[in-house]
Amino acid sequence: MKILVLNCGSSSLKYQLFDMEGEAVLAKGLCERIGIEGSRLKHQPTDKEDVVFNDYLENHDVAVSKVMEALTNPVYGVVKSMTEINAVGHRVVHGGEYFSSSVVIDDAVKEALEKCSELAPLHNPANLIGIAACERIIPGVPQVGVFDTAFHQTMPERAYLYAIPYEYYEKYKIRRYGFHGTSHRYVSEEAAKMLGRPYDQTKTITCHLGNGGSICAVRNGKSIDTTMGFTPLEGLVMGTRAGDVDAAVITFLMEKEKLTPQEMDNILNKKSGVLGISGVSSDFRDIEDASEHGNARAEAALEVFSYKVAKRIGAYAAAMNGVDCIVFTAGLGENSGPTRRLICDYLGYLGVHIDSYNNCLRGSAIEISAPDSRVRVLVIPTNEELVIARDTKELLDK
Amino acid sequence: MKILVLNCGSSSLKYQLFDMEGEAVLAKGLCERIGIEGSRLKHQPTDKEDVVFNDYLENHDVAVSKVMEALTNPVYGVVKSMTEINAVGHRVVHGGEYFSSSVVIDDAVKEALEKCSELAPLHNPANLIGIAACERIIPGVPQVGVFDTAFHQTMPERAYLYAIPYEYYEKYKIRRYGFHGTSHRYVSEEAAKMLGRPYDQTKTITCHLGNGGSICAVRNGKSIDTTMGFTPLEGLVMGTRAGDVDAAVITFLMEKEKLTPQEMDNILNKKSGVLGISGVSSDFRDIEDASEHGNARAEAALEVFSYKVAKRIGAYAAAMNGVDCIVFTAGLGENSGPTRRLICDYLGYLGVHIDSYNNCLRGSAIEISAPDSRVRVLVIPTNEELVIARDTKELLDK
Repeated sequence: MKILVLNCGSSSLKYQLFDMEGEAVLAKGLCERIGIEGSRLKHQPTDKEDVVFNDYLENHDVAVSKVMEALTNPVYGVVKSMTEINAVGHRVVHGGEYFSSSVVIDDAVKEALEKCSELAPLHNPANLIGIAACERIIPGVPQVGVFDTAFHQTMPERAYLYAIPYEYYEKYKIRRYGFHGTSHRYVSEEAAKMLGRPYDQTKTITCHLGNGGSICAVRNGKSIDTTMGFTPLEGLVMGTRAGDVDAAVITFLMEKEKLTPQEMDNILNKKSGVLGISGVSSDFRDIEDASEHGNARAEAALEVFSYKVAKRIGAYAAAMNGVDCIVFTAGLGENSGPTRRLICDYLGYLGVHIDSYNNCLRGSAIEISAPDSRVRVLVIPTNEELVIARDTKELLDK
Repeated sequence: MKILVLNCGSSSLKYQLFDMEGEAVLAKGLCERIGIEGSRLKHQPTDKEDVVFNDYLENHDVAVSKVMEALTNPVYGVVKSMTEINAVGHRVVHGGEYFSSSVVIDDAVKEALEKCSELAPLHNPANLIGIAACERIIPGVPQVGVFDTAFHQTMPERAYLYAIPYEYYEKYKIRRYGFHGTSHRYVSEEAAKMLGRPYDQTKTITCHLGNGGSICAVRNGKSIDTTMGFTPLEGLVMGTRAGDVDAAVITFLMEKEKLTPQEMDNILNKKSGVLGISGVSSDFRDIEDASEHGNARAEAALEVFSYKVAKRIGAYAAAMNGVDCIVFTAGLGENSGPTRRLICDYLGYLGVHIDSYNNCLRGSAIEISAPDSRVRVLVIPTNEELVIARDTKELLDK
């Protein structure tokens, strides 16, 4: 069975084609600047040379067509015909309170996704456009939606309710949803396998630390709390996102700087985070460099970042009344030993001890806690595309 | 030495007169509705009957004069003449980055307080009015300012910087300040005394839980983090204040409901918190009643509240890499055994064990942890007025 995994943004489209026998990636690629001058498609077949097309990608229909052409091309393609593709799995950002697991996409699902568009105005419409494009280009091929929010639908009320007038929850569905669910689910399951423990009898804290970042408390295989909230703005300090801020700062700044809600939102999402504090970059590698070269604000940005992560790990240890295992994943979580060290140095009181040698290794799933550590600490590369492909296969097999 | 402690609000004035020999309260009282129809002064001399005056209190000058009359009245007064009052200690809400301890008020201090008024527009102007009234009514009597923010000025940068563009810190001094500092300082010092430990060698988490609430991490006698931030809105769920919310909720609601920043601020400060979730009341006693009678939203409000407190205790255990002692204080913290129980039930992993019998006692400082508890848990009634009087005396003695 061959499954195409699509992640559609408003002007981009990422894809991976899996052969589910052995879960091999046959090809992957990225369409950029869809509908914008200078569009391009980078196609990366696994056993062949990469190839870049600079054709104009007028819209998502054109982009999906070009991806199909690339996948079936006699030279750099990986399948003979589109008919070999058995299903498409879509990454969908927001499933609201409708979806607590992946689903086969039908009219009712599309309708629900449209209702969730207000909650994710940049993402869900793009996901719907991608779904519609597939319906036109490869009609009849089943499509599956895998949601960033679904894993967190098990959160109890005490974790998802904000302390604002309850009518706003009823009227606008304002509550904590959480994101990165596919990643938190994947690495928490992998962690249980690595430790040889039953997934439904563990207290795991998963730290997805990339340019966007979130932490999740996974108790007995279920998300019970996570740092991102109504939107992916809340929680940790991120590359350009502010994370937690006193709400009064928002209204104060809007008055002082005469900002509209949209302008304020833009500052909090695009100009804040470690970029905002450091003034250097939104890329943690640049900030680590600057900090090593004595830039005090870059150093402050890293300290604020890792301090908040440590505090959230501490908070989730309380939320679960203990923790067995901490997992680091995503760009920064997988690759920055110094950041993991900064974070774990706060956690000695939980019995966390890091093995300095293993903490410097890179590239594969590894335990970085020392043998005497009361809490096991793991680094596990995330693989959201694989989860999407697996969910798609599982739903089709039914 | 007799010291008058004043806490001036925009339309209120609370006072306590201390005889510093034995730190006895000679009288206390409250002026309400200053400048508003229906004003009144309730005067409570310690060894005499309470008395209520319903004279119109046109402004703070009139209110201070009436307080002086009450204190020196031959029947219900407690001193013979105003000249017996050696000094006035003022509770001042916001000292910004200017004051990390209490100070004798002079022109330079008043100027700094005016600069901080933008940061506390409801409180600092009232404090300044109170200071000016004393200058007119009892000229020449030294006055001292004791700040809600001062104790938290020891917070490191990683705890006080928000991850927003750094220019807003430079331009508007937007950062975490923290409040209730006088209370956190008092109960953390008392805790060290009760446990017979040196104050500068303890890791204490103080939970000031009243209608407003905040938690403080006190390491070696210094505040290193606290839940309230730029304003007293941030952090815990309070009676009517929202505490932490996704910043995107603010901009989303402002757009949907067409709210100005001030209207939004009003909702977050006055209509949120446990009142917002429960729809019942801002008073925790009413909500506990409603919850016991099966009101699901009242129960949810209490659960959200105590869950957040427990998570913050967990976070501060990480911030200090451990915790020796947890202190509960203020209305709810001192009086609600069930709330303390709800919170501490999350903390078994830290070795917190509560003694059920002691947890039901009321009225005085007491240890409520069981003998086998790895973390000592105390209930200590707060006494901000006494701290203000002591600071005032200490500064005058110099």
